[in-house]
Amino acid sequence: MKRNVVTTLAFPVLVTAAVAGVAWGEEPLASWNEGGAKKAIVDFVAKVTTHGSPDFVPVAERIAVFDNDGTLWAEQPLYFQAFFVADRVRALAPEHPEWATEEPFASLLKGDVKAALAAGERAVVAMMMATHAGNTSDEFERVVRQWIAAARHPKTGRLLTEMVYQPMLELLAWLRANGFKTFIVSGGGIDFMRPWTERVYGIPPEQVVGSSIKTKFELRDGVPVLLRLPEIDFVDDGPGKPVGIQRHVGRRPIAAFGNSDGDLQMLQWTAAGPGPRLCLYVRHTDAEREWAYDRASSIGRLDKGLDEATARGWTVVDMKADWKRVFPFEKE
Amino acid sequence: MKRNVVTTLAFPVLVTAAVAGVAWGEEPLASWNEGGAKKAIVDFVAKVTTHGSPDFVPVAERIAVFDNDGTLWAEQPLYFQAFFVADRVRALAPEHPEWATEEPFASLLKGDVKAALAAGERAVVAMMMATHAGNTSDEFERVVRQWIAAARHPKTGRLLTEMVYQPMLELLAWLRANGFKTFIVSGGGIDFMRPWTERVYGIPPEQVVGSSIKTKFELRDGVPVLLRLPEIDFVDDGPGKPVGIQRHVGRRPIAAFGNSDGDLQMLQWTAAGPGPRLCLYVRHTDAEREWAYDRASSIGRLDKGLDEATARGWTVVDMKADWKRVFPFEKE
Repeated sequence: MKRNVVTTLAFPVLVTAAVAGVAWGEEPLASWNEGGAKKAIVDFVAKVTTHGSPDFVPVAERIAVFDNDGTLWAEQPLYFQAFFVADRVRALAPEHPEWATEEPFASLLKGDVKAALAAGERAVVAMMMATHAGNTSDEFERVVRQWIAAARHPKTGRLLTEMVYQPMLELLAWLRANGFKTFIVSGGGIDFMRPWTERVYGIPPEQVVGSSIKTKFELRDGVPVLLRLPEIDFVDDGPGKPVGIQRHVGRRPIAAFGNSDGDLQMLQWTAAGPGPRLCLYVRHTDAEREWAYDRASSIGRLDKGLDEATARGWTVVDMKADWKRVFPFEKE
Repeated sequence: MKRNVVTTLAFPVLVTAAVAGVAWGEEPLASWNEGGAKKAIVDFVAKVTTHGSPDFVPVAERIAVFDNDGTLWAEQPLYFQAFFVADRVRALAPEHPEWATEEPFASLLKGDVKAALAAGERAVVAMMMATHAGNTSDEFERVVRQWIAAARHPKTGRLLTEMVYQPMLELLAWLRANGFKTFIVSGGGIDFMRPWTERVYGIPPEQVVGSSIKTKFELRDGVPVLLRLPEIDFVDDGPGKPVGIQRHVGRRPIAAFGNSDGDLQMLQWTAAGPGPRLCLYVRHTDAEREWAYDRASSIGRLDKGLDEATARGWTVVDMKADWKRVFPFEKE
């Protein structure tokens, strides 16, 4: 079965290597330690790509879905999109003098992102709408592009787009080299992710599923625009994830990767299909190279999911034990 | 520039030929007469695929969107999905004795589809919900698969999936051979199309955009299902088409193909991007081999769109003059 995986790899790896930062000829999944999680992944891929095997899955059905925050890139001390919201509020503040005294904006402008977020769901929605709506789709894309090109992590000082997990980049590239189509299915904003997922993960915009606000087509002096409305369209989290998958992909994945209880229904949905399935949780166990958190964390809580993973025998990545390297910028 | 198109074709045509019903080595676009529309298509593709040309478009951005009803398959005497609705109402009638006297169901059960549809939007929505909601996504897919395998056209007696336009099948395959990703963007039901678009058009479910109802994730005795709710989620028609494209594709197409005023905003949205664009209307001018209708038709009306196509110099296919063959089953 090994032979098949290797031959399938030969050409496509050339195409995807650039994205994963894998040098040509290098071992795939080089940043994964042998055993445990890596073995589960390699065994699954060998099974579904081996012609003649009862578990063989045609290329068209090799759909793999990935959560983003905490699965492909870090999510501590806050979801990175919250930094975007804070920066946008600061940038837009001159046009909104009322924000100086109005919560949650006042806290945000004082630099207290946690207090602003703690003001509850209504406050979060108010901040999202103030920063994500009111412009056109083209304008919003430009804003995100400019912001993400320079946004840095408060602890590491690295670009946020460097705070991605090297083993997961290798996994994305390797799955694609084996005929998989890789999708992001994230609670994050779909239009916040699309401007950079192709460059960073090799995942094109049409393979990104996320939360969204409504948009409206309009002709402005004869020029068509899509106006971003301050109204939630879809929340792609928890039970929303299988709905988002059905909406965008239209068929059930055979592999799903997450890190929190918000991914549980996505993994359940994936697991319930016929034939071989790979359901995997990334568990944040490495306080030194990354962060260590699970059942008690307000961000990326992994509690019910961990119980279900254990009960069903899903694969759980122990970041500390399973990953040789966490971030691409670490020395090997 | 011609050389480039031909060399690009060499390998992928082998893969897509089966779908288009084009024999290996055969001329691409064989069912298109020389000149007019064919020239506009070939010139456009040569332009965007020629390396070093100022009009060159990278493969990732070669997005082409196609309306379905009246553009890829016929839509007379009624949208084919209406036949599905009628057949489903008949199949479900034993469970709904009240339908015998309740409009629009009573008309439908008497075989008068036109009268049922004429009862207005509310009646249409009632019929859609009665036939498209109330089951799970898996169940609905099975129903569509079974139905489409046997459903025949009332005039020609052909399978509905044979009522597709041979020149458009060739165009889809040829665009893909030139690095395009082809999407359907239709007012029809997304889940009505997805079970058969891959087989018939070579377009996988994740590249189908259409109108939808809401779904809800549920665990039924521990088994996850997506329940189809009797509530409209999205209408992918007219100004909804650019919204649907942004939602599913996340970038602006460079080529758009339609046949009615319901496609106008999709063509406007496509045309308004920078660089070379191909906007094309299929005009139904052939009463003998197909149907002839445009400005006055209640189905597939092409009125404002025709004016705008003329004013902007978009390509208009004259079915009678431009197509050697309309349907695959015609003798050449």
